[in-house]
Amino acid sequence: MYFQYSSKVEELQKELTAFMEEYIYPNEKVYEKQLNAEASRWETVPHVMEELKKKAREKGLWNLFLPDSELGAGLTNTEYAPLCEIMGRSLLAPEVFNCGAPDTGNMEVLVRYGTQQQKQKWLQPLLNGDIRSCFSMTEPDTASSDATNIATSIEKDGADYVINGRKWWSSGAGDPRCRISIVMGRSNPHAPKYEQQSMILVPLDTPGVIIERTLPVFGYDHAPHGHAEISFTNVRVPEENMIWGEGKGFAIAQGRLGPGRIHHCMRLIGAAERALEELCKRVQYREAFGKSLSQQGVIGEWIADSRIEIEQARLLTLKAAYMMDTAGNKAAKAEIAMIKVVAPSMALKVIDRAIQAFGAAGVSEDLPLAALWANARTLRIADGPDEVHRAQVAKLELKKHQINV
Amino acid sequence: MYFQYSSKVEELQKELTAFMEEYIYPNEKVYEKQLNAEASRWETVPHVMEELKKKAREKGLWNLFLPDSELGAGLTNTEYAPLCEIMGRSLLAPEVFNCGAPDTGNMEVLVRYGTQQQKQKWLQPLLNGDIRSCFSMTEPDTASSDATNIATSIEKDGADYVINGRKWWSSGAGDPRCRISIVMGRSNPHAPKYEQQSMILVPLDTPGVIIERTLPVFGYDHAPHGHAEISFTNVRVPEENMIWGEGKGFAIAQGRLGPGRIHHCMRLIGAAERALEELCKRVQYREAFGKSLSQQGVIGEWIADSRIEIEQARLLTLKAAYMMDTAGNKAAKAEIAMIKVVAPSMALKVIDRAIQAFGAAGVSEDLPLAALWANARTLRIADGPDEVHRAQVAKLELKKHQINV
Amino acid sequence: MYFQYSSKVEELQKELTAFMEEYIYPNEKVYEKQLNAEASRWETVPHVMEELKKKAREKGLWNLFLPDSELGAGLTNTEYAPLCEIMGRSLLAPEVFNCGAPDTGNMEVLVRYGTQQQKQKWLQPLLNGDIRSCFSMTEPDTASSDATNIATSIEKDGADYVINGRKWWSSGAGDPRCRISIVMGRSNPHAPKYEQQSMILVPLDTPGVIIERTLPVFGYDHAPHGHAEISFTNVRVPEENMIWGEGKGFAIAQGRLGPGRIHHCMRLIGAAERALEELCKRVQYREAFGKSLSQQGVIGEWIADSRIEIEQARLLTLKAAYMMDTAGNKAAKAEIAMIKVVAPSMALKVIDRAIQAFGAAGVSEDLPLAALWANARTLRIADGPDEVHRAQVAKLELKKHQINV
Amino acid sequence: MYFQYSSKVEELQKELTAFMEEYIYPNEKVYEKQLNAEASRWETVPHVMEELKKKAREKGLWNLFLPDSELGAGLTNTEYAPLCEIMGRSLLAPEVFNCGAPDTGNMEVLVRYGTQQQKQKWLQPLLNGDIRSCFSMTEPDTASSDATNIATSIEKDGADYVINGRKWWSSGAGDPRCRISIVMGRSNPHAPKYEQQSMILVPLDTPGVIIERTLPVFGYDHAPHGHAEISFTNVRVPEENMIWGEGKGFAIAQGRLGPGRIHHCMRLIGAAERALEELCKRVQYREAFGKSLSQQGVIGEWIADSRIEIEQARLLTLKAAYMMDTAGNKAAKAEIAMIKVVAPSMALKVIDRAIQAFGAAGVSEDLPLAALWANARTLRIADGPDEVHRAQVAKLELKKHQINV
Repeated sequence: MYFQYSSKVEELQKELTAFMEEYIYPNEKVYEKQLNAEASRWETVPHVMEELKKKAREKGLWNLFLPDSELGAGLTNTEYAPLCEIMGRSLLAPEVFNCGAPDTGNMEVLVRYGTQQQKQKWLQPLLNGDIRSCFSMTEPDTASSDATNIATSIEKDGADYVINGRKWWSSGAGDPRCRISIVMGRSNPHAPKYEQQSMILVPLDTPGVIIERTLPVFGYDHAPHGHAEISFTNVRVPEENMIWGEGKGFAIAQGRLGPGRIHHCMRLIGAAERALEELCKRVQYREAFGKSLSQQGVIGEWIADSRIEIEQARLLTLKAAYMMDTAGNKAAKAEIAMIKVVAPSMALKVIDRAIQAFGAAGVSEDLPLAALWANARTLRIADGPDEVHRAQVAKLELKKHQINV
Repeated sequence: MYFQYSSKVEELQKELTAFMEEYIYPNEKVYEKQLNAEASRWETVPHVMEELKKKAREKGLWNLFLPDSELGAGLTNTEYAPLCEIMGRSLLAPEVFNCGAPDTGNMEVLVRYGTQQQKQKWLQPLLNGDIRSCFSMTEPDTASSDATNIATSIEKDGADYVINGRKWWSSGAGDPRCRISIVMGRSNPHAPKYEQQSMILVPLDTPGVIIERTLPVFGYDHAPHGHAEISFTNVRVPEENMIWGEGKGFAIAQGRLGPGRIHHCMRLIGAAERALEELCKRVQYREAFGKSLSQQGVIGEWIADSRIEIEQARLLTLKAAYMMDTAGNKAAKAEIAMIKVVAPSMALKVIDRAIQAFGAAGVSEDLPLAALWANARTLRIADGPDEVHRAQVAKLELKKHQINV
Repeated sequence: MYFQYSSKVEELQKELTAFMEEYIYPNEKVYEKQLNAEASRWETVPHVMEELKKKAREKGLWNLFLPDSELGAGLTNTEYAPLCEIMGRSLLAPEVFNCGAPDTGNMEVLVRYGTQQQKQKWLQPLLNGDIRSCFSMTEPDTASSDATNIATSIEKDGADYVINGRKWWSSGAGDPRCRISIVMGRSNPHAPKYEQQSMILVPLDTPGVIIERTLPVFGYDHAPHGHAEISFTNVRVPEENMIWGEGKGFAIAQGRLGPGRIHHCMRLIGAAERALEELCKRVQYREAFGKSLSQQGVIGEWIADSRIEIEQARLLTLKAAYMMDTAGNKAAKAEIAMIKVVAPSMALKVIDRAIQAFGAAGVSEDLPLAALWANARTLRIADGPDEVHRAQVAKLELKKHQINV
Repeated sequence: MYFQYSSKVEELQKELTAFMEEYIYPNEKVYEKQLNAEASRWETVPHVMEELKKKAREKGLWNLFLPDSELGAGLTNTEYAPLCEIMGRSLLAPEVFNCGAPDTGNMEVLVRYGTQQQKQKWLQPLLNGDIRSCFSMTEPDTASSDATNIATSIEKDGADYVINGRKWWSSGAGDPRCRISIVMGRSNPHAPKYEQQSMILVPLDTPGVIIERTLPVFGYDHAPHGHAEISFTNVRVPEENMIWGEGKGFAIAQGRLGPGRIHHCMRLIGAAERALEELCKRVQYREAFGKSLSQQGVIGEWIADSRIEIEQARLLTLKAAYMMDTAGNKAAKAEIAMIKVVAPSMALKVIDRAIQAFGAAGVSEDLPLAALWANARTLRIADGPDEVHRAQVAKLELKKHQINV
């Protein structure tokens, strides 16, 4: 057991922290202002974003998520964790460093399972930050937490595949730069249960792809990113758009969702850290009833519990990352399930305390808290609801103590 | 102890429930649609609202909140509670029945403490639903949970009062029909602590009153109602706008906040009931892993705990109402403080479970859940944060067991 | 809705409270001392107990639990609730007032379902407090929370019934005055599911009845009362010992367990009240870090939350009692299930806070807290575990929102 | 970051686990039986204990706690943690391996601060397991969580010190083998606050030392160990019994309590692991309502949450150990405070769930659960109540975000 970051990581932590302070935090409101200055919140991306991306890339703070050292930074999950955490302190940051969901997951899929041609066409511009992508898995009429339910069809027709179905929560599809979706659907209803589904690349400008609407999250539209409901009607793509092969949908999902989930958890830790920091500052200068809030009632408990919950969530996330690095994503499935349960709930509690300490300001946009909270709340649902992950953890635990009858 | 509603109340419950089903629920999305169809969400009130108000008034479901039987429905708090609860099932409903905050509180203030002239000028149009009003107490730079901190000045100058200061969370000030604010401010910094503050009527079109912006709540703008930040710069109103008399601010606040708080609690119970109902329906038809959600894991616990928490909160709210009716708002202060702590947290828990049961749909606007949640969250802060109410309850409890030294 | 006790109840509250203060509290340690002075804690009952019973009976504070006005006090459940609560403040008290479990439940069974002969032989001495009784339902090798599992056999043999089986948690069987058990067992395995079980009277001195051991509760032996494991081997009793009739076991259990459960809940509220009172006294005189505990950190929250939780549990218990009185035990099943979940957990939380406020003293016998806690803990299990009651509440709730397919 | 135990540790884990299974678990009830067979539970130690100690010593599983490699096993805290955890699975085990509190803490004090003579006289027999010791810090009339309150006096008189005062919760003083106490008391009321207290060695057979009584914990007497209240009346010991020097009480306490606290936490993790294991076995074979408990309702949540909470507590404990090893006990004070809050509450939750899963058996002595629970409950109080540790964590956190005015 060795609880220390490498010097490489510590160096990157410093650089990222400096970048956040110099460029990210001061531009959070600038971004929102530029967005609101447009005729529509959906048609242009605030230009501050591309400026920040350029700066981040110049400083080498780019694609840190990708373990592949030729295409990305070559960091292990354990090394990336404390860096991703820092990015998670601002909802603006991940995109700036080209480390935002769902692009990271999609890039990982293409690195691992993509053909040379697929990589050239879609991976390269994603790595460059030139385009964005979305991931179309969840369906409105399906209990998608059980992915065997997914009903969108992907049918072979000559040298093409034809896709029909309806997806929602395709996050990022609202972005004018979003060009491509990875769509999960059923290619063979007669195959064994876990070989019925495939993943296929569908350019968003393909005829039959219609973005029906975007869904808000607790009142946030998350423009221009957005969470889209997309209908696919007789959408025809060439067979070379199939990823890895027919029936590989589940196998890819396993590979994709592990890193995707842990990245969310890392960012949530950062979000919680920022909330705790805001809270600590607030309660020292805010006075009521003749003394600072920090000297009153339960505030001390809030701070202590927040610190304790953050530390524990971080350690468990690091352990999960370590297991992914050393034993593989599959062997780490219990740990991944555990942090997927722990991190969102932890962040929600910590951020909620900060909101309460700020009073009415806390629920508004004067502080980043309410937006961070809403984001964390979706993560008790996205990529599998808590209940599914808990069931997974329980199943693995019971197996250890099986009684042979 | 007698746990039954009177037949008068039961009759009104039936009528209200029928009205909700026939007119309110089907129009929730209509309202939002009409609002979005306007050039701005802030300039016109969706016309469905005035149509619904007209209908409610025709059916005698109007001003039920007002215990004064000449001006209102003459119901006691205990009688109004189960009715207000029904209105709380939809964020649209309270205004329809002319029972929405902050108008109800403002009307109560005018009924109790207003001069004949004030009543004629402001109370009557409010009772008619012709205009709306706001309440300007909280200040951005003041820990207003301790109201002795309020810093806005109200200075006598000849036959006028001159108001200077900055308020925020003046809810409803965004509404184009909003004409008048009751402003709390310091009229005499040298008076005894609880006699320094006054409340005064300030028409929103008085020179020097500027609505600086409206504040969102978890991404919701709550247009056209809105939560306004208002600056008052040398705002001059005639002395007859003073309510009750100089230095009566605290006395009025006590009278105003008791009913205001309990109305919020009643509505939160209704919101929780609606969420539980939605949850129960959802989990019976939604299937995952081969059986309905209602037969799985913790769902049963969620339902049971929700029902248990709602029942308890309702009973405590009714008891508080009963004490207000029989012993007065002051004698009921422990009970009011208790429900103010209980009801929002209860509603948040119940609604959150429903959100989780719906998955991603739960955080969107396809269901009323996320909006109800955000509203409930503000009520752990508005009208005094939980911590202040808990401190009040603790103080009263300790007093019972005082040790004489 | 009418939230006030009748003057009859208020009068009895005063008398009971005075009795508690004069006779019960000062004798709690006397009782324990007398018990420890004996050679065995199991063979004699401390004589202070019979003295106190005599006093309580003289003052008319006797059999208050029994709604039957000829045999008992003729109080409704709603009237008895606030009185039973007072008794619950001390583990010593219920027996003193002849209102202790399981005797009260057994007496109710005999009043409702007993023959004249059964009443004369067993009910009368129980009403007089001359003997005690136990209730043998739970079995060590059976998941008795599902009572259809009960395996003890009751077989007709001529004019007798022959009982074979093993029971445990027959509380009170350790008491040297305990003479009779009401035993639940299967009389007809071929009858419809809910008519297989019967209840029969078994005198403890019948050959074949062996008290194998008594079971401690968190280190408490609860001597001389005790929780017994009893084996029944070819135990033969005359057929007139059958209660109501063969196959009536479930019907009686329904009748018996409703009042039994609510009495437990009432007492738990009293236990919580006592703990809160002790806490409030403690934190006002105990100083650390230069000020009294009551002025520090979270103590105020503990007090407020305790008061809030107690109030809510009490109101729900009263409502359940009211429904039992007005609509019957069956119609009140949701409410009974709810308070059975609420009251023990509430008491555990409140008592635990008091323990924490007292530090090490809290877990010892210098205060009644640890013993009250342990008792409350068993009540999350006894008479049906929380989980079974929650399932019942959920089932009833789902039924309200059934979707017809 | 490196999340793996060394092979040395893994080897010891295996040996300890084997020893637990072969010798400890089967003897838990033997020990209790031998204890009950004696005339008094306080006068003799069950002989199985000395047999087990002999066996453990032969196998080299002895004094593993002591980082000093000449006297003990030379393991770091990080190495000892997973081993101590295994011992914590049984309340019997720590003493068997000579790793039980309070002896370990006392031995550490003597190793670090004892004179050669003190070591020879007291440390050696403790290391051999020939005698036992106690630690007398807490006082009945003092809020000892603030140790500056400690009132027992230690006065110099010629070549002696004279001790007067009253201590309680001197755990282990009931044991007939207990020979020596380390007593904390005030030697100089006029010195600076943190130099007023000293620690001194007081043999229990010194005239004036009277064990007044032992205190039970939730009904458990913990015989023969016991938690003693001891009066010290004009107790005279030679000046060479002073440890380190007058006024060093606080400094020693800091050194002593760090390792003592973390050992408790390690053991609590083991206790929780055992409870979870028992729960998992139980719910797989126990059936109710036609299926195993593991397939019902919330049981899966209990298991998942337990596993998640245990993992997090373990990681935080390991990190604290790592910091103690690498940066020193003082630098690790935040981490030590955090685990002291986390571990007992975590264990209480996990064990409580297991109790609930077992029903009535869970609160009895048929399973180790209730006893483990009671033990864990004291650890929210002993060595500083949760509230003091939380205050410490909050203080350190606030310091990071101090605002310079």
